[in-house]
Amino acid sequence: MTQVTEQSPATRFAESARAGDGVRTDTAAFDAWLADCRDRFRNTVELRPLDALRDWSVDPHTGDVGHSSGRFFTVRGLDVRLPGAAVDHWRQPIISQPETGILGILVKEFDGVLHCLMQAKTEPGNVNGVQLSPTVQATRSNYSGVHRGKAVPYLDHFRDTARHRVLADVLQSEQGAWFHRKRNRNLIVEATGPVEVLDGFCWLTLGQIHRLLHEDDLVNMDTRTVLSCFPAAVPATRSAESGPSYGELLRWITEERARRERHVREIPLNSATGWQLRDGRVTHRDGLFFDVVGVSVEAAGREVGHWDQPLLAPHGTGLVGLLVREIDGVPHALLHARVEVGNLDVLELAPTVQCTPQTYPHLPPGARPRFLDTVLDAPRERVLFDAVHSEEGGRFLHARTRYVILEADAGLSLADCPDYRWTALHDTAALLRHSHYLNIQARSILACLHGLPGREGREKS
Amino acid sequence: MTQVTEQSPATRFAESARAGDGVRTDTAAFDAWLADCRDRFRNTVELRPLDALRDWSVDPHTGDVGHSSGRFFTVRGLDVRLPGAAVDHWRQPIISQPETGILGILVKEFDGVLHCLMQAKTEPGNVNGVQLSPTVQATRSNYSGVHRGKAVPYLDHFRDTARHRVLADVLQSEQGAWFHRKRNRNLIVEATGPVEVLDGFCWLTLGQIHRLLHEDDLVNMDTRTVLSCFPAAVPATRSAESGPSYGELLRWITEERARRERHVREIPLNSATGWQLRDGRVTHRDGLFFDVVGVSVEAAGREVGHWDQPLLAPHGTGLVGLLVREIDGVPHALLHARVEVGNLDVLELAPTVQCTPQTYPHLPPGARPRFLDTVLDAPRERVLFDAVHSEEGGRFLHARTRYVILEADAGLSLADCPDYRWTALHDTAALLRHSHYLNIQARSILACLHGLPGREGREKS
Repeated sequence: MTQVTEQSPATRFAESARAGDGVRTDTAAFDAWLADCRDRFRNTVELRPLDALRDWSVDPHTGDVGHSSGRFFTVRGLDVRLPGAAVDHWRQPIISQPETGILGILVKEFDGVLHCLMQAKTEPGNVNGVQLSPTVQATRSNYSGVHRGKAVPYLDHFRDTARHRVLADVLQSEQGAWFHRKRNRNLIVEATGPVEVLDGFCWLTLGQIHRLLHEDDLVNMDTRTVLSCFPAAVPATRSAESGPSYGELLRWITEERARRERHVREIPLNSATGWQLRDGRVTHRDGLFFDVVGVSVEAAGREVGHWDQPLLAPHGTGLVGLLVREIDGVPHALLHARVEVGNLDVLELAPTVQCTPQTYPHLPPGARPRFLDTVLDAPRERVLFDAVHSEEGGRFLHARTRYVILEADAGLSLADCPDYRWTALHDTAALLRHSHYLNIQARSILACLHGLPGREGREKS
Repeated sequence: MTQVTEQSPATRFAESARAGDGVRTDTAAFDAWLADCRDRFRNTVELRPLDALRDWSVDPHTGDVGHSSGRFFTVRGLDVRLPGAAVDHWRQPIISQPETGILGILVKEFDGVLHCLMQAKTEPGNVNGVQLSPTVQATRSNYSGVHRGKAVPYLDHFRDTARHRVLADVLQSEQGAWFHRKRNRNLIVEATGPVEVLDGFCWLTLGQIHRLLHEDDLVNMDTRTVLSCFPAAVPATRSAESGPSYGELLRWITEERARRERHVREIPLNSATGWQLRDGRVTHRDGLFFDVVGVSVEAAGREVGHWDQPLLAPHGTGLVGLLVREIDGVPHALLHARVEVGNLDVLELAPTVQCTPQTYPHLPPGARPRFLDTVLDAPRERVLFDAVHSEEGGRFLHARTRYVILEADAGLSLADCPDYRWTALHDTAALLRHSHYLNIQARSILACLHGLPGREGREKS
């Protein structure tokens, strides 16, 4: 009675995940290709004062930092009130980017195994120049020509989806602490005809990408979020959306959304109390959280050769921790119903821990995240995954996050934690078909979890 | 292999829907009860200038109309830009109500048949005083005591859901043209113990409520939206969420959301160009759309005896039309991916037609809704449902909408209508488990559709 056939996308992805070496690009060839791209595709990035950026300006009335076209994004202020929270009112700079971009991976079968067309892409904010990005990674301003750059390669496969086989297509949020209402379209499209491999692109199996996830700063954020949306290999007999646990999960989300209150409104950046534009950058008076800086970029191997832009430069390395365990033989992850200021809905589900540890000495004790110490003090034998990845290098400067997956202690108590819940992995897969449910940090670490060869990994991939 | 058993909520609701006469309240008893309630529960509602309302005031700087407690709701201005639309920029008053209220129906089995505990409730904006409302209909300000009124009866069943059997619990939007980001929690809870029937309440089967939906201005908006969320009697073998049509539907919604642009921001009400406060009401300079008026209410049989408040008074009766047909034996409805200014996400699915017909002579020809004439000119034999219902009488004054369900002509063309889609009814049921998908007008008319005894009705109820 199983509805999964040899031809189902889930099965085909599972097969691709088992293919640790590619048909089109074996591991040695990949290493050589990456080294060559790193050699040839180099950005020169220099700090430049925000008020001296070409094509960008600081509005004399509001202090907002915007592009002369009015497109791309604008750095504004945000006023936040969270009644009942440990810190219940603050103001901060935020990146306002209402347009929806495309993050798309093109897939194609070679010798019966699905491969992903990956791109060696430099971004100005990357610590190491080239990282592995989806086939297409483009804002609307990119592909509608505001950029005055070259055409985005392979874009047609993702813009005219009616002509192609679409395996996933869903709008997902990005960093809710740094973006106001940003969403990107996560797309997986199967090529139906021949595909020319352009310079800077290569075909990899899911198994190859999963292995690369263990390397620091290689698989970029956009790849990770699209990876998390790959159709799951969950047998239809356990199909999440007809099971009782899915209904209970949705009801818990409703309950949490209904009981939390969040009030946000955009304000002029120069009204963001506690923040100031000084020496060409926007900083917090205590040097906390992040700065907004300007950079000037000279690029090779990218759409345009030279531009200036603002970037958000976080202070300190982030930490994302996910506790996992099996319950009645079913893999579960401990998710957190987390209110963030920039998401459309009041909350999305986040990993067990999501924070910048070095910030907490400066905040009230109640702000210290639950389970932070559980993650920091975990014995080594419980650590299933541990790598540092970069966040989007087109918006953030050297934003790095340590991603840790831990086998939970069976004795872990959730008493007085109504906002945390053990969630079956097949239910997270069902949620990923929709917007507004799993935040970018949760999707990133789920992509890492799916790539594990152990019990949790097998469930999905 | 069907997963529906005699005990499933869906089957129990289907049985309740077939029960045209109630075990607890037969039709004659209902008629007598309603007549008695109408006789005893009377509101006296008088117009009063907005700037002379008790406990409400017009802010001298912004013109916003708000309550002295800062709670309930505020009438503000909204600036709207919809690039590419027939009318691409305007300003308007809007009701800003960020808090989440509860709309809950308590159900209980008598002699093996589920009954709903319905309330005879007066609202100041109702054309006819008493209508049939859910068991509980309360804003957070109501039940947190800002109202200084009596406790809301039966509220405990919906506030402490862990102690009860919850059959549905989902946040749903309300009128996106009149509310900014308002959502209510739609709840269906089964009572596990005895329930005392208080004055003004009575037990009805779903079949009885469905029959009452054919009467004008009786089953109120809040009842209709909760009704639409009743678990569907769709056999598991056709379970929507594992079927291919559901995936295609989600992808279409993503595509439509990604290609539409909407920019809204709250502004002071006195900056809403084209609108003015004159003679104690806010009106459009051409007398179009709606007015915001003040009323003074003396009530009997309600939480508090006397209060003032603003109401939004629309001009003209609304029209909601839904085209339906069978495709390969499966009932489908023609839904419209409709951008509305007040919803959280850029668009939700709306009925085929949703408008106020008398507005269009004053707008550009491109603004006239597709399929409006199809609905207005439909031959009588295609009309499956036709009744006038009231919108929420706690916020709107005499807001009435004609709801029409039509069997579509097989020759109907959808050429050049990427924003319309034939949608299987079992897929709409799957969407209704989530927020952000079906707007209030769609949910209202789906509730009417589910109540029909014909093919479409049988599918759901």
